[in-house]
Amino acid sequence: MTLSVHPVTGIGEILPGDDIASKVLDAMAGGGIALANGDIVVVTHKIVSKAEGRLVEVVTDDDYRALAASEAAQVLRRKGAMIIAVTRHGFVCANAGVDRSNVPGNGAVMLPVDPDRSAHRLRTRWERATGARLAVIVTDTFGRPWRRGLTDVAIGVSGIDPILDLKGTTDGSGHLLEVTEVAIVDEIASAADLVMGKAANIPVAVVRGLDWERGEGRATDLVRPASEDLFR
Amino acid sequence: MTLSVHPVTGIGEILPGDDIASKVLDAMAGGGIALANGDIVVVTHKIVSKAEGRLVEVVTDDDYRALAASEAAQVLRRKGAMIIAVTRHGFVCANAGVDRSNVPGNGAVMLPVDPDRSAHRLRTRWERATGARLAVIVTDTFGRPWRRGLTDVAIGVSGIDPILDLKGTTDGSGHLLEVTEVAIVDEIASAADLVMGKAANIPVAVVRGLDWERGEGRATDLVRPASEDLFR
Repeated sequence: MTLSVHPVTGIGEILPGDDIASKVLDAMAGGGIALANGDIVVVTHKIVSKAEGRLVEVVTDDDYRALAASEAAQVLRRKGAMIIAVTRHGFVCANAGVDRSNVPGNGAVMLPVDPDRSAHRLRTRWERATGARLAVIVTDTFGRPWRRGLTDVAIGVSGIDPILDLKGTTDGSGHLLEVTEVAIVDEIASAADLVMGKAANIPVAVVRGLDWERGEGRATDLVRPASEDLFR
Repeated sequence: MTLSVHPVTGIGEILPGDDIASKVLDAMAGGGIALANGDIVVVTHKIVSKAEGRLVEVVTDDDYRALAASEAAQVLRRKGAMIIAVTRHGFVCANAGVDRSNVPGNGAVMLPVDPDRSAHRLRTRWERATGARLAVIVTDTFGRPWRRGLTDVAIGVSGIDPILDLKGTTDGSGHLLEVTEVAIVDEIASAADLVMGKAANIPVAVVRGLDWERGEGRATDLVRPASEDLFR
């Protein structure tokens, strides 16, 4: 099975109140992409947040820091002006997900209030419009401890189980697998980022050809409970 | 630009001393994959380690734990029988990268001694055999703090800069990007894992269609210096 990842171009700037479900479908049509059964639509949260009005005018660095602090449920570490914080959703990331890149003027964008719900709304719209069985993943770009560089991960999920549980399956040698939980939606988010790029202004990609399981999981299922986390 | 990820099937079991460069090329030929300029070949470290003899007979759980301890340069945390350790390469992972899945009998496999060098050797062989300009990424499956589930990451790299540095580039709004370093080889590793799977016994995939920069970086460049790490 060959996997393919298709960038969706021509979506244009998104403003508060915009109907991104329609705008993305129009852009897909313009690019010759017809959604089909099994397609996974990956959407950077930026356009979701903008459409949902999670965008504020920020003039100063102090305002930006105050905004990050107000979005944080818990601050784990500070480094200069940056905080590593737990968001209300439970995600751990820099500045509680508040970001200034890809925002017009001096604005800043926050994470969607409920990215799983945002993903669900988009999936429902796109499934109705196309008749295809889809999954939708809303992404953000997170840093990690120990490793330099950022990767895209899932912060909202609809239609797919975020964890692929291989428990009880055997490997090529016939042994039960020890490694049982694959964060498949994070791997899909990273694959999609390869065609979206940070500078290319392509906020949506379609991942096609993956054998995935229909599920009702949420991205917040990916949050490791603090009690099980060795690095807080 | 559409990205495609092609699994390479039919490689078969790898034994110590095997010439995996040849075996993989043969399998590609059998599957109709002809390497071309710009292709990135992603190889799970398991077959590299096996071919390099980094495979030991382990009979008991105690032996396994002793092996993990002997592979660790530093132990960061313990949880039951598992350690989270820094390997000699600088990677932070469970059991210092010693793994028992996908190993015949009761064996365990260690990480390659120098995965960057392993990647370089494979790239040289494949470039000579095909005349194509390639990159090679050797991967392992790592857990992360804060997020459940595992993802594949790069532990060996040849021919490509592991970090895509966007410093000085502007986003779609004309602003300088704040997020400047993308761990592109980790995103490629994750994309490849989507077609390889943990249970499918497909240890190699070809990533095609990505616009990447030729470079001489090493996967160890991804190691965040301990002095800059907030979570050790």
